[in-house]
Amino acid sequence: MVLYIYSNVIGAFVFNTDLRIIDKLLFEDKDIVNNALRLENNEWLDEEKKLVKKHGHKIIYLGKKQTELKGIELSKDDKFELVNERISQIPNFHQMIRKAGIIITKNKIKNSVKQDTLVIQAINNIDELDRVANTLVKRLREWYELYLPEFSKKLRDNEKFVELVLKKKKTELLKEINISSKKSMGANLDETDLRPITELAKRILSLYDLRKSQSDYLELIIKKSYPNMYAITGSQIGAKLISLAGSFEKLAKFPASTIQLLGAEEALFRHLKTGAKSPKYGILHEHPLVTKAKPSEKGKIARALGDKISIAVKVDFFKGKFIGEELKKELEKKFIKKKK
Amino acid sequence: MVLYIYSNVIGAFVFNTDLRIIDKLLFEDKDIVNNALRLENNEWLDEEKKLVKKHGHKIIYLGKKQTELKGIELSKDDKFELVNERISQIPNFHQMIRKAGIIITKNKIKNSVKQDTLVIQAINNIDELDRVANTLVKRLREWYELYLPEFSKKLRDNEKFVELVLKKKKTELLKEINISSKKSMGANLDETDLRPITELAKRILSLYDLRKSQSDYLELIIKKSYPNMYAITGSQIGAKLISLAGSFEKLAKFPASTIQLLGAEEALFRHLKTGAKSPKYGILHEHPLVTKAKPSEKGKIARALGDKISIAVKVDFFKGKFIGEELKKELEKKFIKKKK
Repeated sequence: MVLYIYSNVIGAFVFNTDLRIIDKLLFEDKDIVNNALRLENNEWLDEEKKLVKKHGHKIIYLGKKQTELKGIELSKDDKFELVNERISQIPNFHQMIRKAGIIITKNKIKNSVKQDTLVIQAINNIDELDRVANTLVKRLREWYELYLPEFSKKLRDNEKFVELVLKKKKTELLKEINISSKKSMGANLDETDLRPITELAKRILSLYDLRKSQSDYLELIIKKSYPNMYAITGSQIGAKLISLAGSFEKLAKFPASTIQLLGAEEALFRHLKTGAKSPKYGILHEHPLVTKAKPSEKGKIARALGDKISIAVKVDFFKGKFIGEELKKELEKKFIKKKK
Repeated sequence: MVLYIYSNVIGAFVFNTDLRIIDKLLFEDKDIVNNALRLENNEWLDEEKKLVKKHGHKIIYLGKKQTELKGIELSKDDKFELVNERISQIPNFHQMIRKAGIIITKNKIKNSVKQDTLVIQAINNIDELDRVANTLVKRLREWYELYLPEFSKKLRDNEKFVELVLKKKKTELLKEINISSKKSMGANLDETDLRPITELAKRILSLYDLRKSQSDYLELIIKKSYPNMYAITGSQIGAKLISLAGSFEKLAKFPASTIQLLGAEEALFRHLKTGAKSPKYGILHEHPLVTKAKPSEKGKIARALGDKISIAVKVDFFKGKFIGEELKKELEKKFIKKKK
């Protein structure tokens, strides 16, 4: 028996020598395909009907696997060939397929926005806000130092600095750092010259607020969608892991050792290329268990963390039970007890 | 006659062989020095009195020039020597001088904040705000494109984009770009997932507002303090010239050719080093006369602009009359007429 296989974005079609579609396998759900095709003014269905009329082919909807093609026995002797040329004899066929393909792809894109996409956007934005706020604070400090240099030098905490600049007057701030107004090297600025400085401070404060509310939002989705991972990593590290992996699905499929090293790619490749020391942890160095550990223990803890996170994300991905608390306790038992 | 000259931050002192201060020249106004010294619990004055008592020296306050030292005739045969060693025999002398020096320096720093310092801060901050807003808009677009990709792709104007995201609903925006909600590739996000996006947009809009108000502020100082330069350059280019020069005084002392090339330092050094094409203008390429000109004319116009700006800043620096309008008209007559 000679068979022709024609494959496009919608599915795979099996034709016999008479160009009859004797079987097909749709890559998408029947409903989605039919929906996509119907959207295009029934063109596809019309054409399909013409095809049936012309060739009298039989359409069988199948499962997802090619080996499950029903009604046809496939052997090594069967010849599979692409029949693009012969198919293209059907008027508008390619155009139709193209249109349907676009619709199906659009649909896929639309439905591809999942929780992890939002997580990645949120964590990247939080990082960006940090950077932006830091840049603007540097500028604010430089500007404000014309007015009151001693205060900026004394208070290194950026957020507090911005808050106090807005809250307190020069005389109050000078009192706080015990410097007389005469001794201060700051110039006297009048209201007009001071306003742009305080306006800048207001914007920075509002960026800090946004950072906080976006961290809350991030915590909300992570806690809800990935409870097991959240139990071990918290929201920030969890989000960074998803972002570094590219998606939650990818993260769930990574082995523990990859998770352990996520975020240390540069050091890892340097190790592979130049034989430099191999990294022991990537983003996990931010985890409290690692930060609190002795340097000699850090690598070990990161490995254990990678193991447990790897289990947790797999359970989350397959919507398993909540075992995060257990995993966390095992880790703490192992490493916090040891310290005492 | 043998004379000893001792110089420190406060002034220059002339001693005779008996270590009497027979003359001194103060680098600062008498008042400032006295103020500075008095602040230090009269230590200086006490010491000075001791000095008078011990050596019976005569103190003469002089003008600013060393050649004007009164009461002493200086000839080439007179020997000037530093008498650090002998001076240091006076108890606490160096310590006192150091303390007074610090106070005078602090005072100088305090009084060094002039209009041009504020101009530099303001223009740098406006640049920074541009950069920051751009970064955040990129992030906003990426995030918003999950929700409504077609709109972001169509509207390239960042500021309008942010405004519309805040002002209009998805359905309204889809209508504006003639796309049915079914055809859109954007995902449906619920209120919780949408809020962080609109919050980000609000912050960006507020940064744009700040940029505007700071540009107004900049215009205000430049117009008031440097009216002649302002007439030719406007506030943005004027501020950038001051910022590139480092201070208005430096700018006023630059030759016209330097002003013409301010902001093109990199290209200039490349020219000097590698023989690449010499630049014809720096920041002046942003001036409307240059932007509107034909490429072949641009260099010529930049040179003429540099000439006039150089005159204008000198007049501003020495608080001369307002001739900015005249200078501007000469330029326009020369280059706008030619065009016709």
